[in-house]
Amino acid sequence: MPRLKAAQRRDQLMAVATKLFAKWGYNATTTAAIAEAAGVTEPILYRHFSSKQELFVAITRAMSQHTLDYWQEQTEGIHGPAEKLRAIAKGFPDHIRKLEDAYHVLHGALATSRERKVLAVIREHYVEIEKFFAGIIIQGQSTGEFHKEMDPRLPAWQLINIGIGYAMIALNLPSLEHFSVEEGIEHILRGLKA
Amino acid sequence: MPRLKAAQRRDQLMAVATKLFAKWGYNATTTAAIAEAAGVTEPILYRHFSSKQELFVAITRAMSQHTLDYWQEQTEGIHGPAEKLRAIAKGFPDHIRKLEDAYHVLHGALATSRERKVLAVIREHYVEIEKFFAGIIIQGQSTGEFHKEMDPRLPAWQLINIGIGYAMIALNLPSLEHFSVEEGIEHILRGLKA
Repeated sequence: MPRLKAAQRRDQLMAVATKLFAKWGYNATTTAAIAEAAGVTEPILYRHFSSKQELFVAITRAMSQHTLDYWQEQTEGIHGPAEKLRAIAKGFPDHIRKLEDAYHVLHGALATSRERKVLAVIREHYVEIEKFFAGIIIQGQSTGEFHKEMDPRLPAWQLINIGIGYAMIALNLPSLEHFSVEEGIEHILRGLKA
Repeated sequence: MPRLKAAQRRDQLMAVATKLFAKWGYNATTTAAIAEAAGVTEPILYRHFSSKQELFVAITRAMSQHTLDYWQEQTEGIHGPAEKLRAIAKGFPDHIRKLEDAYHVLHGALATSRERKVLAVIREHYVEIEKFFAGIIIQGQSTGEFHKEMDPRLPAWQLINIGIGYAMIALNLPSLEHFSVEEGIEHILRGLKA
């Protein structure tokens, strides 16, 4: 295998680790297996990531940033808060399929890992998503489009919870995907209306 | 360890396997580890369950039946569909905490297992839950309490998806639990109103 530059090697190790975590679960995957699949020795892996946890943290942060950048870009030119949520809902099925392995890793680790650092970076991810959605809800409340008698975090978490459940089913039991994200968001918007 | 009757041994093996699957993930747990933790030999385990998959199937079916029995019982004396959903929402946080290990197992396997039988029994579980919720929605549509221009499976899946997401966060990142299931259901009911 030709020698890669540090940044390329880092990216390659993250891509390989994502695949193995998605396939075997975070708990069951060892740094030895990741190094082997990447065609390097463990000491080389450790030059880039000091532990399996560090790899997980890097993968989750990259996925989180990617998601937020994508939603930011998707909603940038859209004025109304309801329309912003509709645009995100519309793109969501494709978005999770593109990041399928990263979602398996995130959800698998959330369901089963008890490592403090692993849970801390997952928490960081959801806090950012909460802020993003709460911002849209607050905009809708300030323009009078959404009703004001609610903590904006409630609908933000309604959206996050639906997103987690939807992704868990759509990615793992596609034959059960009777739920249309686009219709689902209309239902939520009905409940948000002032 | 004293000899147990067949039914007791079966229950004990299921309880031990639930703990190990919850802790290490379904993929990473071996029947050897389950037998050892239960204080029996592997051949004894195989007399009761022919494989790790069979154990998973038995655990998931028991948990599914337990959930449906509980909801049936909770809603039996309640007439209105909105009130039924409120009663389920109110009891949900305690319910998932009582079945915490079983939920870790279910969600962990859903996120990471690619075994056909494992996914099939999880699918069975959600199909039963879908039927249960759709029944309540149809009742609300027939009495005119809920609006009729929707496939009842849509709100049924809205509820399932929120339930999955809520349980994933509440059980694994309790410090993020800003979402009130009881307030969340009011929001959903607003959207369901005729």
